[in-house]
Amino acid sequence: MFSCSKQQPAAKPASGLTMRPYGERSPYEKTLRGAREATKSIGVGSSRTPLQDLYGTITPSSLHFERHHAGVPILDPAQHHLVVHGMVEQPLSFTLDDLKRFPSVTRTHFIECAGNGGGELAGNAGADASRSHGLLSNSEWTGLKLSTLLEACKLGADAKWVIAEGADACRMARSIPLTKAMDDALLVYAQNGEALRPEQGYPLRLLLPGWEGNASIKWLHRLHIASEPAMTNQETAHYTDLHPSGKATIFSFDVEASSVITHPSGGQKLAGAGFHEISGLAWSGRGKVAKVEVSTDGGKQWQEARIDAPPQPKAAVRFRLPWQWDGQPVQIASRCIDETGYVQPTRDDILATRGPNSTYHYNGIKSWSIKADGSVTSV
Amino acid sequence: MFSCSKQQPAAKPASGLTMRPYGERSPYEKTLRGAREATKSIGVGSSRTPLQDLYGTITPSSLHFERHHAGVPILDPAQHHLVVHGMVEQPLSFTLDDLKRFPSVTRTHFIECAGNGGGELAGNAGADASRSHGLLSNSEWTGLKLSTLLEACKLGADAKWVIAEGADACRMARSIPLTKAMDDALLVYAQNGEALRPEQGYPLRLLLPGWEGNASIKWLHRLHIASEPAMTNQETAHYTDLHPSGKATIFSFDVEASSVITHPSGGQKLAGAGFHEISGLAWSGRGKVAKVEVSTDGGKQWQEARIDAPPQPKAAVRFRLPWQWDGQPVQIASRCIDETGYVQPTRDDILATRGPNSTYHYNGIKSWSIKADGSVTSV
Repeated sequence: MFSCSKQQPAAKPASGLTMRPYGERSPYEKTLRGAREATKSIGVGSSRTPLQDLYGTITPSSLHFERHHAGVPILDPAQHHLVVHGMVEQPLSFTLDDLKRFPSVTRTHFIECAGNGGGELAGNAGADASRSHGLLSNSEWTGLKLSTLLEACKLGADAKWVIAEGADACRMARSIPLTKAMDDALLVYAQNGEALRPEQGYPLRLLLPGWEGNASIKWLHRLHIASEPAMTNQETAHYTDLHPSGKATIFSFDVEASSVITHPSGGQKLAGAGFHEISGLAWSGRGKVAKVEVSTDGGKQWQEARIDAPPQPKAAVRFRLPWQWDGQPVQIASRCIDETGYVQPTRDDILATRGPNSTYHYNGIKSWSIKADGSVTSV
Repeated sequence: MFSCSKQQPAAKPASGLTMRPYGERSPYEKTLRGAREATKSIGVGSSRTPLQDLYGTITPSSLHFERHHAGVPILDPAQHHLVVHGMVEQPLSFTLDDLKRFPSVTRTHFIECAGNGGGELAGNAGADASRSHGLLSNSEWTGLKLSTLLEACKLGADAKWVIAEGADACRMARSIPLTKAMDDALLVYAQNGEALRPEQGYPLRLLLPGWEGNASIKWLHRLHIASEPAMTNQETAHYTDLHPSGKATIFSFDVEASSVITHPSGGQKLAGAGFHEISGLAWSGRGKVAKVEVSTDGGKQWQEARIDAPPQPKAAVRFRLPWQWDGQPVQIASRCIDETGYVQPTRDDILATRGPNSTYHYNGIKSWSIKADGSVTSV
């Protein structure tokens, strides 16, 4: 397979660096969050995880996607409080230390922006995996169950919604059904082993596993317990699904099963015919990924890909398929099937059932085209 | 449980930061790798993971422990080669791109330095979890199986050992039995989603799951296939287990089951009597952690702790036990039981069976003492 074309002389030994108290990546590594979509306002926009350059399932915290509506506040954890008020026995205020005294859990979950892949539906396919699906990241989170806190707060009998508000400049707020709050919702203060990063809501974030990222309020400082939703700007003017009839679905939180091949993917170039591994990420907001299938003939036939570790609920998995490329032009694609039996649909399926208006919650099958010269482009 | 003693006025909104291409932690976070044990030589020593300040199971790459014998070389991946020679059909040289074309795997594994906890046996108990057990970290690694590469290299019939050599200034080398090389050994190029960090062997590291960290050669640039071990300095003068008889065990690679409570742990202070969660890490080089038990009465009685996610082979797990502290002085401890049925021993057990000479491979039960004022010290 490989010849000993040049058996390099050993590199000249050098001591290099000594120990460092907080490590950094190699100066040879240049991967960055890409495709910032800045507006004229400061701190409004997004940066995307460079999925095509990453490995495994964990997104490095430094490369977790960002989507901010009013910048990233730098909050002093010693001054930060979470206030719970409204339909509770009495309003309560919790410091970070208070919250860390509750029983804690560690869980791996993806977060996906509701707008991820929206360009695909609109016909503006992302040129690479970052631009097509880079508003998706996957982390190990630690915190407490929101239900643990709410039980301690003694909710009123009519409580049905939790209105969560962040401490960013726009006071981002979303209304969360109490059923979700009491199910698997988390209040997280740690990510991938250390404190949350500022971009992910330091020092405290609501995390709603499997739901659109916007609802997982960052820099969380207030939970208002209510009988009705607040109908905030972010759940009426945005993050709704407009139907062909002109009516819109609101509070459509779930992330449906999706996937993307990250290698080979747009912008990459295969060195030539022969063995190549096809690899990517798959996820579902409905539970565990059951299996991932890959097509190497433009969607006619599908083969089951390998998944290394047991899938966790509402967590991304890495899938892999060994593949012999004959050097001919070809289209490759992946589709995710989750534990509910749901099969990731095609773009045409989505257009037929949901219409062309809503760019949120797009989860169509993503195809990449490989030319005879090995170059890979978006379909 | 908590009163609304001071319902803080909301913090003044501020836009703060805008998007960043590569994120950093909050300026309020100060946790560092601790207790460097520098010698007079540059780049010889260790830095320890601050286990007492971390969460979950993944060690942030920036805080993975370090143990270097001649510094951290900064290697250009485009110039790096892995040479395989000796008892092979023909010597071969692989670039990083070559290695990435092989089928890949992603697996979570701990790495523990053979010297971790050695001070405990010697009677110099670490004052905190970093100083007692901080030469232990846990990461998600991606690379190829070493067996995949060796099969492609067509080994000679008499091949029994793989002598792995690093590109650091001291050319760190260890002899690995072929049985391990063909079992679960990996060649890894990625850690926690991105390229390996320099301190963990960028751009290529041997990873021997469950074996003493020193044998997982960093900055890997050579595999010499042989019928006998090389008897390198690091496997004769160091990393051997000296018995009371004066004889020493060599090539004793396995990491036995171990654990440490990270909260409450040395240097921390409980705010008062009442509910506290006891939490820590457990691991075994023999396979999966089967269960973890915690004692809150100085080792007389043991209760089974909760583990969140299904344990993976040779990976650290986070364990947790809810606990009501009555405010009286107490000793707490944890012990790991792995899937082979092995139970983590006491320090006295180890002294009785192995004697006092070897500070390597110590895995005795670690106890912390809590005083009436809530302060926690090492036992």
